[in-house]
Amino acid sequence: MNAEVEILEVSPRDGLQNEKTILSTEDKIELVERAVGAGARRIEVTSFVNPSRVPQMADADDVMAALPRREGLKYAGLVMNRRGLDRALAGNVDEIDVVVVATDTFCQRNQGMSTAEACDTAAALVEEARAAGVFSTITVGASFGCPFEGEVTTDRLREVVQRVVDAGPDELALADTIGVAVPTDVKARLGLARGLAGPDMPLRLHLHDTRHTGVANAVAAVEAGVRTLDASIGGAGGCPFAPNATGNVATEDLVYLFDRMGVTHGLDLASVTATAAWLEHRLGRPLPGALLRAGSFPG
Amino acid sequence: MNAEVEILEVSPRDGLQNEKTILSTEDKIELVERAVGAGARRIEVTSFVNPSRVPQMADADDVMAALPRREGLKYAGLVMNRRGLDRALAGNVDEIDVVVVATDTFCQRNQGMSTAEACDTAAALVEEARAAGVFSTITVGASFGCPFEGEVTTDRLREVVQRVVDAGPDELALADTIGVAVPTDVKARLGLARGLAGPDMPLRLHLHDTRHTGVANAVAAVEAGVRTLDASIGGAGGCPFAPNATGNVATEDLVYLFDRMGVTHGLDLASVTATAAWLEHRLGRPLPGALLRAGSFPG
Repeated sequence: MNAEVEILEVSPRDGLQNEKTILSTEDKIELVERAVGAGARRIEVTSFVNPSRVPQMADADDVMAALPRREGLKYAGLVMNRRGLDRALAGNVDEIDVVVVATDTFCQRNQGMSTAEACDTAAALVEEARAAGVFSTITVGASFGCPFEGEVTTDRLREVVQRVVDAGPDELALADTIGVAVPTDVKARLGLARGLAGPDMPLRLHLHDTRHTGVANAVAAVEAGVRTLDASIGGAGGCPFAPNATGNVATEDLVYLFDRMGVTHGLDLASVTATAAWLEHRLGRPLPGALLRAGSFPG
Repeated sequence: MNAEVEILEVSPRDGLQNEKTILSTEDKIELVERAVGAGARRIEVTSFVNPSRVPQMADADDVMAALPRREGLKYAGLVMNRRGLDRALAGNVDEIDVVVVATDTFCQRNQGMSTAEACDTAAALVEEARAAGVFSTITVGASFGCPFEGEVTTDRLREVVQRVVDAGPDELALADTIGVAVPTDVKARLGLARGLAGPDMPLRLHLHDTRHTGVANAVAAVEAGVRTLDASIGGAGGCPFAPNATGNVATEDLVYLFDRMGVTHGLDLASVTATAAWLEHRLGRPLPGALLRAGSFPG
């Protein structure tokens, strides 16, 4: 399959935020450095949120300050509000990632406001980021299903995505936050997003492998023309505000898949898998990525 | 997606044969009965092989004799040789499944003969089964890669599949025995098999989820027109003669996938998942299927 994709490495943020073991700032920096060594060029390094809500991210400012900068390497930070944006800009992020959850119940639990309020907030944050010369992406959480409200209809998603498009980000992402999507959903909802966003806005897809559909959904996304996929080394991750949300699709599982499919991505499988083994050791629990257990092929 | 598939339940055979815990004959019968209760209509119930080689299958004849027969329900038994065929026919199987491994090294370890010898044996077994009025299927093991020889070239596969087609089975299957395939491989090699087998021979695909590509490969197979997929409740399984071979793709993971894709299959997700939980308890180890942990959606 002739395609080139970008894998946005989210292990330092989505990968860690739900882990019981709090990594040291040094370990977080090492994780980012290892990802860079494996070929990652776009990394969501932290989230600038209230440390009482997400203790793993309490050292976000320190992490940002300590990370070495390199030409062609982009660090993204997740922000929810003005306070987070100020911290992100002070930390000199390359990108902000703003989240809007597609259902009111989950949005309220995730960020203390309704979906409509989150859209308004996102619009203001995007505008301020742009004024500061910083790239912005908006991620629509629970685009394929909600742990509290159940099915998210395409009508509801259309309404939310339209508001997000109106907010004017540089990129738009759909997130399968609780890992319920199947390939037909992925193609249909990415098509809906493409229709609303127009042909020029980059689309990104954020997948969780909770029901082992993550890899199939990644294939569907590439077939649908999406060229940026989030993934997390080792398949670490989950949302602290969503029950039963397990890991992101594992970076090394996508790397194996894409290597054998002939889809280029710039990452080195052995390095990513070695980093997954390192992260597993630091977190003190088995991570769900498959390549970590199975090894590559041919060996 | 408008399609109807048949899921061939292989947990009593491929699912159990690599497990350390030997299930009682009663438990094996209960497993089959539970699968039937969940909607399975085609089940590989055992293999008629040398018990010193595969101790889990030592009671194959007893299992076959004890299973209740029902209209529309087909029991398959794996056979490797004339002795196995005689036992299968004496047990009144509905189908025999004959295996030919695509590489000589693995074929030698699996069944003590070269690939060419296995093809000759398969041809004789198919002929005798037909004479006895029994349906025959031939599975080409390691169609996508070999744990001993590495890559299996398409030239090699073409040669083996041609010999298998010449053996004249009622159905032909490709097996990703060690779980290395990706969707592009699946489409290419099923296309190769279709070209050699002609438009009328049913094709089947046997998947392992060792590298988390099993679900994606199932989607590719359905897109390629294949209508029978092997799966194992709980994702139990593996080959005793292939290092690092982990579980078959889990039946309940395919059922979740197909339910949400609108692909019909006749199985009930809750019943299959409950059976996976039961099997996990009987085997005394966690099984790798995802739905067992994650639960369905919407809940």
